[in-house]
Amino acid sequence: MFNIAIYKERRNELKKAVGNGLILFLGNEEVGMNYKDNTYYFRQDSSFLYFFGLDKPGLAAIINVDEDVEILIGNEPTIDDIVWMGTQPSLTDIAAQTGINKVAESASLKTLIKKSLSSGQTIHYLPPYRSDAVIKLSDILEIPNAAVQERASITFIKAVIAQRAYKSDLEVTEIDKAVNISNEMHLAAIRHSKENVSEKYVAGIVEGLALSAGGNIAYPVIYTVNGQTLHNHPTSNTLKKGQLVLCDCGAETAMRYAGDLTRTFPVGQKFNALQKEVYEIVLKAEQAAANSLKPGIRFLDIHKLACEHLVDGLKQLGLMKGDVKDAVNAGAHTLFFQCGLGHMLGLDVHDMEDLGEQYVGYSEGMVKSKEFGLKSLRLGRELEAGFVLTVEPGLYFIPELMDMWQAQGKLKDFINYEKLDAFRDFGGARVEENFLITENGYQLLGEPLIKSVSDIESVVRM
Amino acid sequence: MFNIAIYKERRNELKKAVGNGLILFLGNEEVGMNYKDNTYYFRQDSSFLYFFGLDKPGLAAIINVDEDVEILIGNEPTIDDIVWMGTQPSLTDIAAQTGINKVAESASLKTLIKKSLSSGQTIHYLPPYRSDAVIKLSDILEIPNAAVQERASITFIKAVIAQRAYKSDLEVTEIDKAVNISNEMHLAAIRHSKENVSEKYVAGIVEGLALSAGGNIAYPVIYTVNGQTLHNHPTSNTLKKGQLVLCDCGAETAMRYAGDLTRTFPVGQKFNALQKEVYEIVLKAEQAAANSLKPGIRFLDIHKLACEHLVDGLKQLGLMKGDVKDAVNAGAHTLFFQCGLGHMLGLDVHDMEDLGEQYVGYSEGMVKSKEFGLKSLRLGRELEAGFVLTVEPGLYFIPELMDMWQAQGKLKDFINYEKLDAFRDFGGARVEENFLITENGYQLLGEPLIKSVSDIESVVRM
Repeated sequence: MFNIAIYKERRNELKKAVGNGLILFLGNEEVGMNYKDNTYYFRQDSSFLYFFGLDKPGLAAIINVDEDVEILIGNEPTIDDIVWMGTQPSLTDIAAQTGINKVAESASLKTLIKKSLSSGQTIHYLPPYRSDAVIKLSDILEIPNAAVQERASITFIKAVIAQRAYKSDLEVTEIDKAVNISNEMHLAAIRHSKENVSEKYVAGIVEGLALSAGGNIAYPVIYTVNGQTLHNHPTSNTLKKGQLVLCDCGAETAMRYAGDLTRTFPVGQKFNALQKEVYEIVLKAEQAAANSLKPGIRFLDIHKLACEHLVDGLKQLGLMKGDVKDAVNAGAHTLFFQCGLGHMLGLDVHDMEDLGEQYVGYSEGMVKSKEFGLKSLRLGRELEAGFVLTVEPGLYFIPELMDMWQAQGKLKDFINYEKLDAFRDFGGARVEENFLITENGYQLLGEPLIKSVSDIESVVRM
Repeated sequence: MFNIAIYKERRNELKKAVGNGLILFLGNEEVGMNYKDNTYYFRQDSSFLYFFGLDKPGLAAIINVDEDVEILIGNEPTIDDIVWMGTQPSLTDIAAQTGINKVAESASLKTLIKKSLSSGQTIHYLPPYRSDAVIKLSDILEIPNAAVQERASITFIKAVIAQRAYKSDLEVTEIDKAVNISNEMHLAAIRHSKENVSEKYVAGIVEGLALSAGGNIAYPVIYTVNGQTLHNHPTSNTLKKGQLVLCDCGAETAMRYAGDLTRTFPVGQKFNALQKEVYEIVLKAEQAAANSLKPGIRFLDIHKLACEHLVDGLKQLGLMKGDVKDAVNAGAHTLFFQCGLGHMLGLDVHDMEDLGEQYVGYSEGMVKSKEFGLKSLRLGRELEAGFVLTVEPGLYFIPELMDMWQAQGKLKDFINYEKLDAFRDFGGARVEENFLITENGYQLLGEPLIKSVSDIESVVRM
């Protein structure tokens, strides 16, 4: 945890922004994998962590803005809890850790909310992403499961985003730590990738490193020779010499801040000529995008700039033709770059995604596009100092998508369909780094990790 | 997957046992960690795996016993699915993998069930342990969330247990694999445990090995210098020379069968005299219990036998006194051994725990005890050939529990409370192995893993 004063200040700011009513926070619960008591590792809700710092299951909290009262909700430990889980602090002790001096048992939550509702108070809660939270809210508020999502408080959502979007120095230090652990994961991935070992073998080493560093993975490890598949997970396929591996992985620190990096590298030998050409197009787009980062510029425009660099490279490869800007405006690049350039990063790898991409990534008056390609751009708004984000362009050769577009004759003024065949088995390439937006520009987070062709080749086991 | 014929045969047997009505299987869904799309690794429901073998989210299945029709429920892949997750088989192809030739879209499930209900059919479903399954059942059956659990089908539960409790040769081979991977995890745990590394560091290596082997961990790794806490998870505490580490971990194979082993070992030096004495009491109890395994004997009686060995050892240590059998019958040993001797093992580490311990571990007419100690004995019933189970006695010195009992003067004819002080910081020790019950006795699963004091000391890094 950070210092108590930080959490108290964050809550005070939140109270002011929400203005009135009762703010209800549900912390996350344990989730059974294959039965109730065999649980996944516990992941606290990020907004609960941000405002309370308490990384334990079974907690909720109420901030009654009108009466200026904060209550931590939970259960006192029993002797059974101590036998199974060791010495446990009392609920009062836990509350004191975050500067709260009022507690209540979980069973009383419904009564507290009912009292508040009957006195006409608005109940503000965030949109739940866990089913147990839906059930709990349905019970507490006495509304059907299906009505829970739509009654989440937009005021509360916007107030949380307005605070969490700007990272403090302490938070940046944590993300920096996460990126440095992620760096070690990537170096290990490159070093352990050799002929005849399986994708799962290497991915296991990578995930083990994140755990050994005291935290966890920030998201499921993507490690695949099918880099064209955007969220491919490791399989038991063994690596073959010359294959291109795409590894997208990042650590979460013990404080739950995330790193998120991607590297692409060949197995057992240097990049071949085509791999090198494609990789360097991606790298150039990444560097150009990074160099444009600064307050005041829309990330949507940096996304477009990166796309132009990709199209420029694809023209040199012979895969695209025509005017670069026209191609990007028409969305022709989305045959090869189907997703967005990046996203906010913080306590979540896609920071605050649970609160809604429209609110997190787009400002008032700017509506997130529903077009293929842009609909996956999680961040479009004007950048501000304190934002932390990823930059991650890529080129992905997806046979099914190429076939579909070709059959439709889609945007054929920009695409040389007859040249695509040579790329059916190429796979995909991506480069990803994490940045802080500063007053004057940007700062790379973590120590620089190798990304040039020659630097990567120096680590590949040949 | 096993051969299609196996799944068809299992379902045919199930149909006969359930007799009539409609059997509804809900496969598991993805669960978001900190937002919807950042998911934990996917774990399929074990009964769904057992009867269908399909290890994918988003599936359900109906077996209409009265009409002898099987339908696989799911959604056809979209182009977005292919972009994000790679080439996807059609629902019909997936169904064919398990020998089913009828499919229906997820959206039609409610209609199918409604039709069945209106024709007077009984809907059989298993008790859900995931909240999303509760919401789904509440919607499909049009009953409140709170009513879902109690309406689970006892007939269905019993039929599933009657099949899954007896492991086939193919299943035993899988569990054997799981135990052998678990063996490697334990050897690595002992080898990497040295002064000044953290519990989390070693636990990360151990978990990475399970992943690298192509499957996963079967349950959260227990690796702790506070072995007295029964389910303690690794902390960032660093190891000190001479501390006793308890490591309880096991792998799940790619087919999702579990291993479950425990070893206890000292850090950086040999066992000290007291550690050796306690450890060897536990080891003796474990061996005596294992040697008694055979069809026809109640596991409850083997549990009691192990307790008697523990009490015998505790008397020699000076901690207990009086008649051994009387002490065990009075429950005096539960001050030091608070849990059960073992449990069934299979597709779940506590096999079929979601179906109810009373049904899984106790036969008709034998009711699971609610007494401290025995209430945690998950298996009490008469053993039969084909059962796979764990044997895992231990001694746990829990200061809070010792203080509570001493203050109550509990069972003081059997306990030398004045001697307990020397054990307040001891921690705990456990030894655990996995066995198959054979026609004539038992068979250790996996290759034998070191467990004698001298064998363990030969691996400890000094």
